[in-house]
Amino acid sequence: MQKVATIEDVAREAGVSRQTVSNVINAPSKVRESTRQKVHTAIEALGYSPNATARRLRTQRSSTIGVRLDAFSGGVSGVVLDRFVHALTEHASTRGLRVLLYAARTVEEELRQINELADGGEVDAIILTGTSREDRRADRLLERGMPFAAFGRPWGADDIAKADHPWVDCDGAAGTRAATEHLLERAGTRIAFVGWPSDSETGDDRERGWREVIGPRAGDDSAPRVSSEGGVAEAQVAVRSLLRDKAIDGIVCASDALAIGAHLAAVETGRPELQIVGFDNTAAAEALGLSSLEQLPERIAAALLEMLMGPEDSRITHPPAPTGLLVKPQLIIRQA
Amino acid sequence: MQKVATIEDVAREAGVSRQTVSNVINAPSKVRESTRQKVHTAIEALGYSPNATARRLRTQRSSTIGVRLDAFSGGVSGVVLDRFVHALTEHASTRGLRVLLYAARTVEEELRQINELADGGEVDAIILTGTSREDRRADRLLERGMPFAAFGRPWGADDIAKADHPWVDCDGAAGTRAATEHLLERAGTRIAFVGWPSDSETGDDRERGWREVIGPRAGDDSAPRVSSEGGVAEAQVAVRSLLRDKAIDGIVCASDALAIGAHLAAVETGRPELQIVGFDNTAAAEALGLSSLEQLPERIAAALLEMLMGPEDSRITHPPAPTGLLVKPQLIIRQA
Repeated sequence: MQKVATIEDVAREAGVSRQTVSNVINAPSKVRESTRQKVHTAIEALGYSPNATARRLRTQRSSTIGVRLDAFSGGVSGVVLDRFVHALTEHASTRGLRVLLYAARTVEEELRQINELADGGEVDAIILTGTSREDRRADRLLERGMPFAAFGRPWGADDIAKADHPWVDCDGAAGTRAATEHLLERAGTRIAFVGWPSDSETGDDRERGWREVIGPRAGDDSAPRVSSEGGVAEAQVAVRSLLRDKAIDGIVCASDALAIGAHLAAVETGRPELQIVGFDNTAAAEALGLSSLEQLPERIAAALLEMLMGPEDSRITHPPAPTGLLVKPQLIIRQA
Repeated sequence: MQKVATIEDVAREAGVSRQTVSNVINAPSKVRESTRQKVHTAIEALGYSPNATARRLRTQRSSTIGVRLDAFSGGVSGVVLDRFVHALTEHASTRGLRVLLYAARTVEEELRQINELADGGEVDAIILTGTSREDRRADRLLERGMPFAAFGRPWGADDIAKADHPWVDCDGAAGTRAATEHLLERAGTRIAFVGWPSDSETGDDRERGWREVIGPRAGDDSAPRVSSEGGVAEAQVAVRSLLRDKAIDGIVCASDALAIGAHLAAVETGRPELQIVGFDNTAAAEALGLSSLEQLPERIAAALLEMLMGPEDSRITHPPAPTGLLVKPQLIIRQA
């Protein structure tokens, strides 16, 4: 078995103190560039790799970010969070950080997991996903003094610009506004919306963008709006009746699953060319040649890490400044 | 700030030694059930949480499993690995383990990451994905003595049953065999295959199942087989010509992207009812009502953890026994 190089070996090889080697690894800004170079050369020559566990105890840092991975939900739009986790892993990796996944099926379970991660020093920060009104996870993290940022705005806050923690969210209303304006220009004046029935915060936000553009024209009550539980088949049934009853020039949808249902209904009723815009830009919408709004999860992941750590550093600010950012989705046009 | 309970506090509260508390946490099988109960009661009463970082140094275990998360590849079938990571996180969680993601764009980068994870004691085991012929990652892990299991068979091994490490893979050939038999029974005798052009190992495996059933009937050369680079649009073009030139009763495809292309070509040529079976059972295939082969990533994840740790334990066997398992995919029938 090959002898493993220690920090002392590196110090000897570079002709510096043990503390200097430690500083190069853990606080490089404290060390002159020429010394850093010498130490890095020694590290490479000896194949030295600082023991992460020991380093964690020494520096009180794990260089790890925690994020909950939900159970696989299936469905057309289930992939947006996955794309976000992919992007987060990539961006974290370029900063020398890793991503630790934890599973939690309920809020209670997630609160327990947050306590364990904080107690164990397993992560330096947590990224929350799927925020809701009066989010107990945010309160718990603030209480515990654990740095965190949220993918999702602080729903229900009087003024989201004055949140108590950093967050980034997709600007759903801006997306559906752009989609509605696009269809008004290309398809005609009668643009319907297909959304979810319950008053989900994300759904309301996406509906608002359409209503802000179409409302003044159609009058709030007569604007054609149907709702569906979210599945392809239900949306197909709902849009089938809509197309039979009303003259419709185009449809904006709160998700790609709804858009696919709407498209199948349009094909059925002899209007395969009916212009439809979905939301989430999934592979399924792409496969069917449907336009969609792209949430840009890569940009959201990069922005969250920047809020936690600044533009380039790999050290988490404690506590991070409470700023918010809405990322406007990009309209991907696939229908002529 | 609330005082944090220590292991000594727990020992005092339970009326046992510090070592006994440590055993309850790290080696419960060494402790009598009644003593375990007492210690657990004390742990709950005091809200004690063993410091994970300190515990890692003490036990030399991180209770963490590493898995590479690739860059998001997009496309219809990009979600199979994500479902696997979801399932792995859930199953690991029920065993008290976490999943650490690392990013690597090249084999070299992954070999470096494997060294770092091993040096740093950050993970107890690694799960490899996307195995290939002469996989240098497996060799490296064996060299390093890091326990690992692979999602993917040891391609190119003389006898996959005699591999040098544990692995689980989807039995592609068994899947397409079942799909071909299903179409022979339901659709007719002329069953085509749409696959990938290059000799990819996964693609060859999936083609083999179809050929084993159809070959004896059609003769190897006359079996209708077209290939496409993998995208929906390319498959659509290839199948359009196939359907013009030959009488076809049904199509087995190496992926859902190919199946969607085939379906769009069938609709175009006036045969929307043509029976098609895809592979991977994605949301896109489901949305279009296409049959598909489900890889069962949840079962694969559970089997890999069991190979590493036995049926229930959360302690990794060192080294794990080199066994292999092919999981037969499930045919999901959606067309009447």
